[in-house]
Amino acid sequence: MKIVVVGGVAGGASVAARARRLDETAEIIVFERGGYVSFANCGLPYHIGGVITDRSRLLLQTPESLNESLAIDVRVSTEVVGIDAKAKTVTVREVDTGREYTEDYDALALCQGADPLQLPLPGIDLPGIHVLRNIADMDAIKAHLDEALDASAKTGKAVRTVVIGAGYIGLEMAENLRHRGAEVTVVELSDQIMPPLDKEVSIPVEQHIRGRGVELVLETAAAAFQQAADGSLKVELNNGRTLPADLVILSAGVRPNVGLATEAGIELGPRGGIVVDTHMRTSDPSIWAAGDAVETPHTVLPSAGLTPLAGPANREARVAAENICGRDTEYLSTQGTSIVKVFEMTAGGTGATERQLERESVPYRTVHVHPSGHAGYYPGTAMMHIKVLFSPDDGKLLGAQIAGFDGVDKRLDVFATAIRLGATVHDLETLELAYAPPFGSAKDPVNMAGFVATNVLKGDLKLWYAKDFPGTVEGARIIDVRTPEEYDIWHIPGAENVPLGDMREATASWDLDVPIRLYCAVGFRSYLAYRLLVQRGFTDVKTLSGGSHTFRFWHD
Amino acid sequence: MKIVVVGGVAGGASVAARARRLDETAEIIVFERGGYVSFANCGLPYHIGGVITDRSRLLLQTPESLNESLAIDVRVSTEVVGIDAKAKTVTVREVDTGREYTEDYDALALCQGADPLQLPLPGIDLPGIHVLRNIADMDAIKAHLDEALDASAKTGKAVRTVVIGAGYIGLEMAENLRHRGAEVTVVELSDQIMPPLDKEVSIPVEQHIRGRGVELVLETAAAAFQQAADGSLKVELNNGRTLPADLVILSAGVRPNVGLATEAGIELGPRGGIVVDTHMRTSDPSIWAAGDAVETPHTVLPSAGLTPLAGPANREARVAAENICGRDTEYLSTQGTSIVKVFEMTAGGTGATERQLERESVPYRTVHVHPSGHAGYYPGTAMMHIKVLFSPDDGKLLGAQIAGFDGVDKRLDVFATAIRLGATVHDLETLELAYAPPFGSAKDPVNMAGFVATNVLKGDLKLWYAKDFPGTVEGARIIDVRTPEEYDIWHIPGAENVPLGDMREATASWDLDVPIRLYCAVGFRSYLAYRLLVQRGFTDVKTLSGGSHTFRFWHD
Ligand SMILES: Cc1cc2nc3c(=O)[nH]c(=O)nc-3n(C[C@H](O)[C@H](O)[C@H](O)COP(=O)(O)OP(=O)(O)OC[C@H]3O[C@@H](n4cnc5c(N)ncnc54)[C@H](O)[C@@H]3O)c2cc1C
Ligand SMILES: Cc1cc2nc3c(=O)[nH]c(=O)nc-3n(C[C@H](O)[C@H](O)[C@H](O)COP(=O)(O)OP(=O)(O)OC[C@H]3O[C@@H](n4cnc5c(N)ncnc54)[C@H](O)[C@@H]3O)c2cc1C
Ligand SMILES: CC(C)(COP(=O)(O)OP(=O)(O)OC[C@H]1O[C@@H](n2cnc3c(N)ncnc32)[C@H](O)[C@@H]1OP(=O)(O)O)[C@@H](O)C(=O)NCCC(=O)NCCS
Ligand SMILES: CC(C)(COP(=O)(O)OP(=O)(O)OC[C@H]1O[C@@H](n2cnc3c(N)ncnc32)[C@H](O)[C@@H]1OP(=O)(O)O)[C@@H](O)C(=O)NCCC(=O)NCCS
Repeated sequence: MKIVVVGGVAGGASVAARARRLDETAEIIVFERGGYVSFANCGLPYHIGGVITDRSRLLLQTPESLNESLAIDVRVSTEVVGIDAKAKTVTVREVDTGREYTEDYDALALCQGADPLQLPLPGIDLPGIHVLRNIADMDAIKAHLDEALDASAKTGKAVRTVVIGAGYIGLEMAENLRHRGAEVTVVELSDQIMPPLDKEVSIPVEQHIRGRGVELVLETAAAAFQQAADGSLKVELNNGRTLPADLVILSAGVRPNVGLATEAGIELGPRGGIVVDTHMRTSDPSIWAAGDAVETPHTVLPSAGLTPLAGPANREARVAAENICGRDTEYLSTQGTSIVKVFEMTAGGTGATERQLERESVPYRTVHVHPSGHAGYYPGTAMMHIKVLFSPDDGKLLGAQIAGFDGVDKRLDVFATAIRLGATVHDLETLELAYAPPFGSAKDPVNMAGFVATNVLKGDLKLWYAKDFPGTVEGARIIDVRTPEEYDIWHIPGAENVPLGDMREATASWDLDVPIRLYCAVGFRSYLAYRLLVQRGFTDVKTLSGGSHTFRFWHD
Repeated sequence: MKIVVVGGVAGGASVAARARRLDETAEIIVFERGGYVSFANCGLPYHIGGVITDRSRLLLQTPESLNESLAIDVRVSTEVVGIDAKAKTVTVREVDTGREYTEDYDALALCQGADPLQLPLPGIDLPGIHVLRNIADMDAIKAHLDEALDASAKTGKAVRTVVIGAGYIGLEMAENLRHRGAEVTVVELSDQIMPPLDKEVSIPVEQHIRGRGVELVLETAAAAFQQAADGSLKVELNNGRTLPADLVILSAGVRPNVGLATEAGIELGPRGGIVVDTHMRTSDPSIWAAGDAVETPHTVLPSAGLTPLAGPANREARVAAENICGRDTEYLSTQGTSIVKVFEMTAGGTGATERQLERESVPYRTVHVHPSGHAGYYPGTAMMHIKVLFSPDDGKLLGAQIAGFDGVDKRLDVFATAIRLGATVHDLETLELAYAPPFGSAKDPVNMAGFVATNVLKGDLKLWYAKDFPGTVEGARIIDVRTPEEYDIWHIPGAENVPLGDMREATASWDLDVPIRLYCAVGFRSYLAYRLLVQRGFTDVKTLSGGSHTFRFWHD
């Protein structure tokens, strides 16, 4: 058995390592066109930012270590330039010497990852405009930044950087550039940052980033790049503005690296990724694929998708290796669980977003809750913003997104586990999560989301949504059930103030058929008001999902 | 409908609150013998420790606030002293006045919690010996400690405290007393701290506590208490030693408060708690119960148990309220998910322990893994110690325990969710958890535990266990596959050193039938060695579960 692997990082190295453990006698060759295998792609921004100081920590394995422990033949700086699927051979080229040779295989694993999206813009190739995918990119950016900072120390003029694209990597770069003391402007085409999340969950993070001195320019595209007389760059935006920059990071997304696969006649899917079956086998029975280049079924959405993330890449690769070695293991779906740290905040999601559900016409319901990361009376916690999407029929979880400070990653993982195991919002009610004051609450935020969602499902609670304002409140009394003090500071235009404690008395004389749209700060007090009004005979009552917190993300 | 609730804290207040939301017209009365309702029991140690400075933050609700928002009639300092189940009345006594009266009910909810275990020891009633259950206890301890610290500031002599019982509350008190500057000795009858965990998971925490200057005296009981001439205390231990103390905290556990229930003829279970059905209804059809006083089925063990924890109390109460209000909601089981912060460490468990599985003759398998809380190359992480128990038949998860620093609570909650949803170790392999370097690894610790466990289940990996040493290695070659440097620092007595990289060559000439017991630091390298040896024909190979880390917890 001879196994050839193309690409030697997350997917490729994992295929090779797992294959060796399953088959001690196989010949295993890994070709990697870059100079390094098994490096921590995800750590690259943090070495630039000086957070991970020791560069060598990013090199998790070397060709030597993989050979010593796993008898894998790793050939770096060697690019696979052709596949002859009929002959079952690959042609490779040594990057440094240009020497080409062929290597035959019994099983071929394509783990070539994704390439940065190149924007076809004038000046895109100017020096100082970088992408960040690998160690060489990192070294180049870091060298450039170090130099600019040195110069700035002398001139006293700040280093100006522009990040194009406000996805996770763009935001990590913004944070790390800021951390080094540079001025940072982030330019994003969409009307929100963090495309894997819905807009209202992205807004608190947006506010936080701005509070940390990063300029965010939304709904704007880079149009062209020019070099100034002093060698620095000018980034022309499509709104007419020009940003001066010493360094530009392009992080506008990635697209699957499928050149080789295409030439070899391997089937591609509608999103441009390699089509694989549940065994991670491509349309060619001797060729498997894993990682950023493949399309996989989505856990909750009907159509398959691309999910350029390290966890799926690693697990897909492990499944590919098992099947290459004759086992029968299935990789069923990817749910797109993702997370990002942005300064002091954390945000992420799992499953589908509301946008995706809309786009694929999957029926859903939404709730927003804003619990604190742990018991409010124990120091060091803050409010988080949780959005949960679920099926209106059986309450099956479809997605969850969170932005906040402490305990965000934990709740995301609980939601991710629940979604993976096919749980409903009823299951969330019953979860028995670990509670002590430094870690959570007796009713954990996840339980709380479950309570609210099941209440909606059972008809015990009807919600109105900030994004539908003002249409949704037309003809209704908008009632703010908070205290007069809270009302005075801010309230929804047109709202009357009836504090919860006065509600029973104040509404005694009201016409039961006048529509009432309640709200409070987060939804708890207005829920209490809802319950009492409905049981007192009011016929059309709804409360604002997520309260004024969620509302102000949309309308402030 | 008239609902009477006995006890006004976690269970009681929750029954009342949920009942009001379901039934706006019910009359709801809560009797609480103490001076406070709805307080944060779990925060009490931290106010004593000065971590939660504002005492009022512990009072989550007051009789007034519960009346204002939920129209609940809360009567504090009012003890229920009798139940006439036939007549459906309770007799109550006002604590301050002694006045007694009766109140009838349609539904009665018993939420009286648990009482501290009182040790029948000479001198147990001396001043300065405290239990910690409620606000009054907290105030007394804090006053006593403040006074002792004031005196100590004058005399320069340290304040000496003794904590009896090394359960979670005992350890929280030890930490908080230390935090205030007191000397702390913890006395524990068992041979380990933290009874909800197995011994090897408790040991790293034990070492950590000792490193923080707390003296731990295991396998020892308090025998008697005496007052010294200067008014301070002497704690006599059953090993002959006497500990001088200015303050003693008794935290030897709790027992369900079932006096009233017993007198009313309500059925108790084998563990002395109130028997309830899945609707949280007692043997009397008009009486429900929730919280520390009830026995509930265990999620993975055959027999029901007592679980004096706030999460279950709150959720049981919510279910009780729903059924009282005519809904049909079930509370199916408690899995005992628990967690404790001990100085910088966190430890906890969910599901069954190995001890419990042994005791109840449930077949199980065990794996130990020691991953780091997040990517090792990103700062601020440390090794954690994970133990997973699962069924040898289908791999169903039976329990998980973790001790470590960062990310422990998160993995506990993922395991807790998986256990609640009936997951197997195969499911753990497929979990798609949120990964970015500050939060985890591309293969999360939970995935990793799943990989190792499924390898065991599929026969791809055979383990030997430190707790069975030395019997388990008899007649075998013990092979240390770490580097010579690691071997020189410490190795298992009798072990030979064959570094992993030399393994293929070194073993080429070995007799294939000699039993080999491998180990490395955590189990990863010895797993690689295992795979290659077995595939090269060795017939009896096992590797040490958890490696030298787990081994040294048992044998150092
Ligand atoms: C800066 C950055 C931060 C990231 N942060 C996160 C994060 O926090 N969380 C997360 O989940 N994911 C993150 N990712 C994404 C994650 O790194 C990828 O999803 C994962 O590495 C994909 O694995 P892969 O094996 O498909 O591709 P890669 O790991 O990119 O490996 C593909 C390799 O194939 C090689 N190759 C391509 N073509 C050839 C050829 N013809 N011949 C030989 N070799 C070839 C390439 O040189 C490359 O090294 C991040 C990525 C980057 C760049
Ligand atoms: C110091 C401390 C720390 C804790 N830490 C944690 C933790 O970190 N995590 C966790 O999960 N759990 C923790 N717990 C346990 C948790 O507080 C309990 O499990 C929970 O409060 C149980 O709820 P309950 O309603 O059954 O009892 P309680 O909350 O104790 O309430 C029972 C109430 O009933 C009253 N009562 C009793 N008899 C009568 C009567 N006859 N008439 C009127 N009133 C009566 C009592 O005065 C008491 O206030 C801790 C407990 C303590 C004491
Ligand atoms: C590191 C890399 C080479 C994979 O290595 P690997 O040999 O599979 O090792 P891992 O560290 O992932 O460990 C997983 C294996 O160790 C085993 N293992 C881990 N801890 C163990 C323990 N305590 N006892 C026994 N086995 C253990 C697991 O079962 C698993 O083996 P299996 O797949 O055969 O079941 C590859 O993931 C890589 O190159 N990563 C870097 C790139 C990357 O992932 N980038 C994106 C993220 S930054
Ligand atoms: C606080 C206490 C009185 C219970 O109060 P509660 O009214 O049930 O309120 P909680 O804060 O727990 O919130 C839960 C309710 O609010 C609802 N809710 C929460 N956030 C919401 C939101 N954003 N929108 C709508 N509803 C929301 C939930 O659905 C749930 O209602 P339900 O049970 O009717 O479904 C009781 O738990 C208590 O006394 N606790 C202190 C004692 C204690 O627990 N000690 C141990 C731990 S220290």
